[in-house]
Amino acid sequence: MKCKKCGEQAVIHLRAHNIALCKGHFVEFFEKRVQKGISKFKMFDRRSRILVAVSTGKDSSAVLYALKRLGYHVEGLFLKMGPHTNLAERVVKNIEVATGVKINIFDVTKDFGGLGTADVARIVKRPVCSICGIVRRHWMNRYAYENGFDVLVTGHNMDDEATFLFGNILNWQVDYMARQWPVLEKTHPKFVRKAKPLIYVTERETYAYVFLNGIPFLEQKCPFARGATSAQYKKHLNALEWEQPGVKHRLLFGYFETMKPLLVSEAKVELRECTICGFPTTEEKCQYCKLVERVQAHRAGNLQLERENDVQISEDQGK
Amino acid sequence: MKCKKCGEQAVIHLRAHNIALCKGHFVEFFEKRVQKGISKFKMFDRRSRILVAVSTGKDSSAVLYALKRLGYHVEGLFLKMGPHTNLAERVVKNIEVATGVKINIFDVTKDFGGLGTADVARIVKRPVCSICGIVRRHWMNRYAYENGFDVLVTGHNMDDEATFLFGNILNWQVDYMARQWPVLEKTHPKFVRKAKPLIYVTERETYAYVFLNGIPFLEQKCPFARGATSAQYKKHLNALEWEQPGVKHRLLFGYFETMKPLLVSEAKVELRECTICGFPTTEEKCQYCKLVERVQAHRAGNLQLERENDVQISEDQGK
Repeated sequence: MKCKKCGEQAVIHLRAHNIALCKGHFVEFFEKRVQKGISKFKMFDRRSRILVAVSTGKDSSAVLYALKRLGYHVEGLFLKMGPHTNLAERVVKNIEVATGVKINIFDVTKDFGGLGTADVARIVKRPVCSICGIVRRHWMNRYAYENGFDVLVTGHNMDDEATFLFGNILNWQVDYMARQWPVLEKTHPKFVRKAKPLIYVTERETYAYVFLNGIPFLEQKCPFARGATSAQYKKHLNALEWEQPGVKHRLLFGYFETMKPLLVSEAKVELRECTICGFPTTEEKCQYCKLVERVQAHRAGNLQLERENDVQISEDQGK
Repeated sequence: MKCKKCGEQAVIHLRAHNIALCKGHFVEFFEKRVQKGISKFKMFDRRSRILVAVSTGKDSSAVLYALKRLGYHVEGLFLKMGPHTNLAERVVKNIEVATGVKINIFDVTKDFGGLGTADVARIVKRPVCSICGIVRRHWMNRYAYENGFDVLVTGHNMDDEATFLFGNILNWQVDYMARQWPVLEKTHPKFVRKAKPLIYVTERETYAYVFLNGIPFLEQKCPFARGATSAQYKKHLNALEWEQPGVKHRLLFGYFETMKPLLVSEAKVELRECTICGFPTTEEKCQYCKLVERVQAHRAGNLQLERENDVQISEDQGK
């Protein structure tokens, strides 16, 4: 196969676009698609201070590097979540070197007396993913806000978003559908806007981009991500994509264009500030502070306070 | 496995309902589901004169027999479409005997000087399925209307409807989505209302119902149904159903409950009566009469009239 642009040996064939590209032209193609997402959905501009949520997986490594290459003012944030992120933490330095982007490291276990999210989950008898979600959402936003960043960027790609939509359609989770959009405006002064610049690139393209640029990343999935139904949905979408190249793109962007405008979001949620940390919440104390209190009570053997907070920590059903 | 109702040997296990049933209780279950569809969507009542579109496939055989057993006033209509329906026509008599329901036979080739839909398709250079759709829609409605029937029933089951919805979602065909409903009211005095009483039963349940009741049907698919994309969609939905029993039901009925009400149908189409046959159409002549004229012109060697009608016969994109 020859590159469609220059006739050199191609390294990748993109069935949905019906083109083959050499390394240089693929990298250009990928970065153009990232820029397209940023521009089309007005995610941020070159004056914005951007914080990328770094997991050390391929997606966050790709978005870190692509934003840097596209001339954006970008830093990363890696959260230490306990012993299970030790391996990932060792990769952070390599990513910094390869991308030339500063990656801040923040240890979330401090608030829990050194306990990791897996221990916390055991104490409060909740799935690890639920606890991890509460802690990540809290600290990603809080770190970005307290350090003057304008935008928090995550590495969700087109496959992630199409899969999320697909699952929500099969179960008609209209609330989630109504909120799905590649950029999330801040609804409170202490919220930082969120953006997903990889919205126009697929998982396979993201793999190719980090491989071809020699950017390190951890292949290993989170050890706590159990046989998630999202993996089933992704598998079926991939099978469909094989038969009908471009079906994921049609599903996701067709939704954005045709259906999303019909879904009026629920009435605005009334936000106030958590009496403990001061960050936005719908209740008196935010989920995160309740979690911290409950773990502290557990460690102090205070069963009364533990019981009070017990029923209040609700499951993380979001993404 | 034992029947959940009586403890006898079960003949079928329904994963989505998590029950096993013996022959008698499965037949009861099936007919209750058919009645549920009829009642829930107010399709018709015991005074209605019902015409079932008979293809001699399992679905129309099942609906014919179930409606008869449930005490409805029902007859069938089988359309002779040319040589490729000869085999099916020979099965009609057996179905009549097994179900005790009268099946009328009508030969649509009369208007085309004895030509079948496959020949007609060749003459007008359109896919056979498109021609077959125009002819079937015309004659099913016209026969029902001219013979005083109140409702035209088709054998579409839950799998058919879920598959149709699934395909329309993947491509966000919002117009088709907005029209999908288990009963279609008449929008013109010469239209007969249409209903799909098998909306609550699956393809597998329908197979089991005709097998267990010894109702004859033709297994063979229509020879002109090429590798349709709907077969791909059905395959993927079946794979999903295997992993998540009940997902088809959730997709379809979740749509009816949650999403359908949000889709405002297009502005009402202005209908007038075809200047030739008098049946409703949006244009001066209906699709069917144009088709007849064009074939007649071809047979008479009148190329001028052929050309005039040429561009007017549009593709059948509906169902």
